[in-house]
Amino acid sequence: MPVVRIDITGPKSAEWKRALLEGTRAAVVSGLGAPDGRVTVRVIETPDDCVDIPDCRTHDFTVIEVLMYEGRTAEMKQAFVARLRETLAANPGIAPSEVTVLLRDYSRLDLDVLPGEAGAGS
Amino acid sequence: MPVVRIDITGPKSAEWKRALLEGTRAAVVSGLGAPDGRVTVRVIETPDDCVDIPDCRTHDFTVIEVLMYEGRTAEMKQAFVARLRETLAANPGIAPSEVTVLLRDYSRLDLDVLPGEAGAGS
Amino acid sequence: MPVVRIDITGPKSAEWKRALLEGTRAAVVSGLGAPDGRVTVRVIETPDDCVDIPDCRTHDFTVIEVLMYEGRTAEMKQAFVARLRETLAANPGIAPSEVTVLLRDYSRLDLDVLPGEAGAGS
Repeated sequence: MPVVRIDITGPKSAEWKRALLEGTRAAVVSGLGAPDGRVTVRVIETPDDCVDIPDCRTHDFTVIEVLMYEGRTAEMKQAFVARLRETLAANPGIAPSEVTVLLRDYSRLDLDVLPGEAGAGS
Repeated sequence: MPVVRIDITGPKSAEWKRALLEGTRAAVVSGLGAPDGRVTVRVIETPDDCVDIPDCRTHDFTVIEVLMYEGRTAEMKQAFVARLRETLAANPGIAPSEVTVLLRDYSRLDLDVLPGEAGAGS
Repeated sequence: MPVVRIDITGPKSAEWKRALLEGTRAAVVSGLGAPDGRVTVRVIETPDDCVDIPDCRTHDFTVIEVLMYEGRTAEMKQAFVARLRETLAANPGIAPSEVTVLLRDYSRLDLDVLPGEAGAGS
């Protein structure tokens, strides 16, 4: 059920965004133990002139917000963030320091998801 | 004062987005007891190639995030989510399973709104 | 480390967005005591027909979400919001009532930032 929202600065190539989506999905599935069929990831690309980052950041600066059910331990969260940075450093090639991760826990009441019915997924 | 943000996959027609905005507003007003003049709703349409959803989801997959003052009971929240899904199933015709709802409570300190002064609204 | 996301209704001029970005950064640095090199601000401009606001609001309605480490006192938060509205009233000229502010506290575990390495910033 994790809902992931990624904020990046555009323009970025289709390959970049594809690698970002796939790498993030893989890290969420393996690092947070979420079933592949329950993960949704979205990239919001904001034009350069609408983003104000400090000199120590680059055009690749990426904010990844993961909204999920509560219950993960601190160890699991830390391992997930490390794995996510590692994955994105490999492809599309984002320096780990350029990846900021926000984790947000929700109760079953406040994150209301129904299983998907289309396709063959779980 | 609820601030509502809806993430959808584009392109969707103007009629679709209008129905989504209006149906969500109606459900927030009736289901959460918010005055009509205090509700703002926004649809963020993300291009198809920037959204990664599993096979069990469809192009209509919709994430609705409601940011509001704390204080609603569990019963009120559950009834609201049910009503929201029902409203959007009727128009623009989104299957209930394709609507994920995130509710987020804020204290008066952390959600700072001033009454609007323009127009004739409350 | 504050991550700031601003939702506005478009179209707005480049000057408007620039003033909004710079004024928000200045208010975050001075009002929340965040080092300039740690603040990132982003404006998400949503087309007019994707935003539904009540009659008492105007086209300038602005939602500012500040995601930051926990620990600010209530007094600091209130002073920050007042300063932010004051700054944006001066330039680009947004009526204080049209600025809604959402503050969200994160633990060190849930907001994971690494120092930037590029440029000369801190």
